[in-house]
Amino acid sequence: MANVKCNPDLVRERAKCSFDVNELIHLIDGGENATKEKRHFEETIFSVKELQDAVPEEYLSHKDRYENAVRKATILRDVCREYMKKYNYKPNRFRVGHGVFKDVSPFLLHDGMFVATIIGQGTPEQQAEWLPKAENMQIIGTYAQTELGHGSFIRGLETRATYDPKTEEFILNNATLSSFKWWPGGLGSTVNHCIVVAQLFINGKSYGIQPFIVQIRDLNTHKPLPGVKVGEIGPKMGFQTANNGFLGFENFRIPRMNMLMKNAQVLKDGTFVKGMNEKLTYGTMVMVRVGIVGDCSLNTSLAATIAVRYSAVRHQSKIKAKEPEVQILDYVTQQHKLFIAIASSHVFRNVYSWLSKSYLNVMKDLAQGKQDHLPELHATACCLKAVCSRDAGSVVEECRLACGGHGYMTSSNLPLVYGFTIATVTYEGEQTVLLLQTARYLVKAWLAALQGKVLAPSVSYLSDWLKNDNVRWQNTPEGIVKGFQHVAAGKVKAAYDTIQKYIKLGKDYEDAWNLASVQLMKASEAHSRSILCEVSWGEVIRTSASPNLLQVLKQLAQLYLVYWTLETSGDFLVYSNISKDDIAILREKYEELLAAIRPNAVGLVDAFDLRDEILHSTLGSYDGRVYERLMEEALKSPLNQESVNASFHKYLKPLMEKAKL
Amino acid sequence: MANVKCNPDLVRERAKCSFDVNELIHLIDGGENATKEKRHFEETIFSVKELQDAVPEEYLSHKDRYENAVRKATILRDVCREYMKKYNYKPNRFRVGHGVFKDVSPFLLHDGMFVATIIGQGTPEQQAEWLPKAENMQIIGTYAQTELGHGSFIRGLETRATYDPKTEEFILNNATLSSFKWWPGGLGSTVNHCIVVAQLFINGKSYGIQPFIVQIRDLNTHKPLPGVKVGEIGPKMGFQTANNGFLGFENFRIPRMNMLMKNAQVLKDGTFVKGMNEKLTYGTMVMVRVGIVGDCSLNTSLAATIAVRYSAVRHQSKIKAKEPEVQILDYVTQQHKLFIAIASSHVFRNVYSWLSKSYLNVMKDLAQGKQDHLPELHATACCLKAVCSRDAGSVVEECRLACGGHGYMTSSNLPLVYGFTIATVTYEGEQTVLLLQTARYLVKAWLAALQGKVLAPSVSYLSDWLKNDNVRWQNTPEGIVKGFQHVAAGKVKAAYDTIQKYIKLGKDYEDAWNLASVQLMKASEAHSRSILCEVSWGEVIRTSASPNLLQVLKQLAQLYLVYWTLETSGDFLVYSNISKDDIAILREKYEELLAAIRPNAVGLVDAFDLRDEILHSTLGSYDGRVYERLMEEALKSPLNQESVNASFHKYLKPLMEKAKL
Repeated sequence: MANVKCNPDLVRERAKCSFDVNELIHLIDGGENATKEKRHFEETIFSVKELQDAVPEEYLSHKDRYENAVRKATILRDVCREYMKKYNYKPNRFRVGHGVFKDVSPFLLHDGMFVATIIGQGTPEQQAEWLPKAENMQIIGTYAQTELGHGSFIRGLETRATYDPKTEEFILNNATLSSFKWWPGGLGSTVNHCIVVAQLFINGKSYGIQPFIVQIRDLNTHKPLPGVKVGEIGPKMGFQTANNGFLGFENFRIPRMNMLMKNAQVLKDGTFVKGMNEKLTYGTMVMVRVGIVGDCSLNTSLAATIAVRYSAVRHQSKIKAKEPEVQILDYVTQQHKLFIAIASSHVFRNVYSWLSKSYLNVMKDLAQGKQDHLPELHATACCLKAVCSRDAGSVVEECRLACGGHGYMTSSNLPLVYGFTIATVTYEGEQTVLLLQTARYLVKAWLAALQGKVLAPSVSYLSDWLKNDNVRWQNTPEGIVKGFQHVAAGKVKAAYDTIQKYIKLGKDYEDAWNLASVQLMKASEAHSRSILCEVSWGEVIRTSASPNLLQVLKQLAQLYLVYWTLETSGDFLVYSNISKDDIAILREKYEELLAAIRPNAVGLVDAFDLRDEILHSTLGSYDGRVYERLMEEALKSPLNQESVNASFHKYLKPLMEKAKL
Repeated sequence: MANVKCNPDLVRERAKCSFDVNELIHLIDGGENATKEKRHFEETIFSVKELQDAVPEEYLSHKDRYENAVRKATILRDVCREYMKKYNYKPNRFRVGHGVFKDVSPFLLHDGMFVATIIGQGTPEQQAEWLPKAENMQIIGTYAQTELGHGSFIRGLETRATYDPKTEEFILNNATLSSFKWWPGGLGSTVNHCIVVAQLFINGKSYGIQPFIVQIRDLNTHKPLPGVKVGEIGPKMGFQTANNGFLGFENFRIPRMNMLMKNAQVLKDGTFVKGMNEKLTYGTMVMVRVGIVGDCSLNTSLAATIAVRYSAVRHQSKIKAKEPEVQILDYVTQQHKLFIAIASSHVFRNVYSWLSKSYLNVMKDLAQGKQDHLPELHATACCLKAVCSRDAGSVVEECRLACGGHGYMTSSNLPLVYGFTIATVTYEGEQTVLLLQTARYLVKAWLAALQGKVLAPSVSYLSDWLKNDNVRWQNTPEGIVKGFQHVAAGKVKAAYDTIQKYIKLGKDYEDAWNLASVQLMKASEAHSRSILCEVSWGEVIRTSASPNLLQVLKQLAQLYLVYWTLETSGDFLVYSNISKDDIAILREKYEELLAAIRPNAVGLVDAFDLRDEILHSTLGSYDGRVYERLMEEALKSPLNQESVNASFHKYLKPLMEKAKL
């Protein structure tokens, strides 16, 4: 990307960067070759003219927007199919999705959930039957679990699959409105197949929830099959082109072999055979949550890139009365809002990489029948998904607000980025539900620590703290990491003690748990934060990079540590040996770090290597033509294609004339 | 509103309410009669069939949506004109606007800014000329100040009005792209007049910014006049029907008398006469900010009503394994998310009422030439607008997230409520800019306190603290209010000391200010919080109400105090004499307050008296038919009016068939 025609402020910013931007790009991508491959793929996709919209999607009606998304999704599918055949390359679906759809494809759940579930839960015979067609897009599918009435509490799902041994079929029914499936992407008007999660009933007895593969539309006419009620659920805050849908059945019959039987089985005569390795199913859920931590890094980098570049281009007001208006990036308050976003994106990426490795190790163990590390992995993924998604939502919105009024424009793309980022807080495990799941693990671990047992690595700090909670405070990264562990330990203990207090007051354990749940949730957050700090700092100091780059990465990692210490200083003052003076010292350190990062800010977001086609932003493009692009995009409005809108003659003029009477 | 056909959970909730909901409704409205009038007006508006949309607006294209909004705005105007003539009643524009437009009317700025500016800044002659036409809607106007390149820094505006004494005209020019006006509501395609704020030049000399009234479109044809470039700026995160626009002039001439000359004047020969009472202009800006504090109360009550009713209807998961699924409102974590929203709405309302009184008093003084209290009012309005808007945005979004996936649906109305609530953080004074303006006032006050001077009432706590910063902590509302003042004083001092530290290190004052600005911003936030706590607690204990109602209002006010003490406990530990044990006690108190408020939660949101037509929410309506409404709204989607969408034959089928090859 040449500096030709670039905004002069951005040229100047890039010239003063103290590290090699390419080195950081390669580090993020996982090597120079990975960057090359990524760029070649993206170059290919974004040179397809048919994938570029002449009129921005936000001007279209809901229906036109859907039709345009299907059009692009099919073209993208074709192009990717060819590309992957030729180069054997697995692209980052999110990067390209953001580029083509601004959010996601109506096919999103086809690969991510439909194909993945057939692989994860189908027998070899079932895989042989369905997989080639699915991978080829001869059939298009989605995954239907959540219902109008049930999301978090999976056991409460109401869709029923009743086995009929006479015909060797399952009969699907959604007898109540609240049992209707609600949310699956692509379900609205796009897919013809669906994985349906339903309560299995045999001879009037429930056998829990099981997955079924169900054809819901005719492959030739696309009409819903008799007994199927399907449609789309309407507009949302984001994911506008995801085509989320609803689905209900009335005495809809499917063959016995359509229950995915890798785990549990139903024999011809209706005998239920319990699964041997149900934990494998569990693994997919964990994998999706790990993936979201990675998505948080990308989402944060999108917002940071837009806001930092805009802040380098935008001049507003003066620091010194006699000097010209300054780049708003020179305001320390603006640095305070934006640099934590850059730092968080790196922290999320490092933690994602660490968590992925843990996941793969645990899956290897599981394949060999060892389940020991699964609870720890599950607890870790739960709380990290919850905290990273919430943090990502906050920093993205902070970046948006930092762009003032222009950040409110759809053409900045920041509202859309916020829309799909904040969704991660809810989908695949609502934040509070997940934090409280981790809290259960933490309370168990605390009890084990009290009993002197050896704890899993991620919670071993609880035993350490129990042995010695009086550690001298140190204003070093390692000291701060230790401090976060003390805070987490202190909060776990306090929450546990609160449960005990309520039990002593006569409450049973379940009510006591609920009464202490705000504290439990916060203990779980503190545990996440301590992992985020420990892991990300550890990853950074182990990074092999040039001294200049390493210095910058350390500054970002330290900024993250100090930022969160100051944000949660009350907890530190209660649960660690930090002093008021230490807090003042850290505040000073924080101001120093902002100043140190300032000259590299634009270089740092350039290193996220997000093409203009992915950013889709009038404020964030590489060349910094902010005002020009704002106007160019506005001029695309259909209202600007006419000098007088019809509503003048229809409504305004009569109103004005009536007034004269 | 009868309980007939209501969801049984809501019926039960309403039955157990400990106070009289009507009493609270009257208290909020300002008397039984005010409630009656409000209801009669709203009943009238919402019984107009033409104001109800058959197809929800979010399914329409951007252009269709605009045209529909103009249609409704003209009808609403007619109905209101008749109504006000008949009943002499001034409605709450926001309540009705939310009901009719889901956000705002394209006429929003006509009354709010166009008419208001003619009144505020026009001479009697100018008022006589323009006002009757404007109030009558013979002309339709807006207010154009912000430009593409300048918002916060008003002195930097680039639009020029150059006086030509030969023709006694001003020549308007927007020579640069960044000088184009950007944002005015209704400007896009609706208005024919505009207040334009421009830099006045006479004989090559600048005389600062002045307001001009400018006709921009032909009254008969609605075509932009020659020399006027006008259009709409495109979609945004909210305010979709506000029709925000851009505007630029090329040698566009207007008569001398089109400069609004209540303050400064330009005589025929080009002599500039400075205004005598420029501070009056200032007053309008303060008034708008005071109004936003009131809007924050309404916006918060919208989200709280939707989320609390939904949480009473929604059952999910179990607290006790053997009992049925519980109302999610019974989870203490849910109470933690929602009750602060109810409490905040009351706090904002009380502070708005207090601030309005201060405003009126200061305006009275000003009319008599006394300006003494203006700086204090300005500083107070700045920081309260900043903090209330930010708080409102946070609690609204928290309410939305507390509704899980369904809160992400447009039909819940929570995404739209968030969209227009979060806008208040930016418009009419960006939050950080405003907080730092108040910080300047606080630093001045601190210096005065150091010099032993008598301070204005809102900052007199600085002197108190300087005399005695070692006050024993008390876990009472009054003790907490004192604590907030100590925190604010401590943070002002710390920020001031940081400035001094940087000056000693060789920085000049302006750079030192910038380097300390994160701390200054936070000091200003702490100052706001202390006002919010002191004023709202004070208003509540002075409220005359029945004992039952008073008890509930006190619980809410206390919840607010304790919530914010816990949220900012680090500051309390540093700057007050609170102990760790006190924090534990307050945490316990907080849990008690949540439990105390729980039975009244639905009654409390019912008391906001927001009709279903204003809430526009599938989740929040009075009868609690949540799932039914979600489905009914979804079925309105144009995609659900056809069993097969055209995109199947055009795109999906070819893709599937290609796969078979």
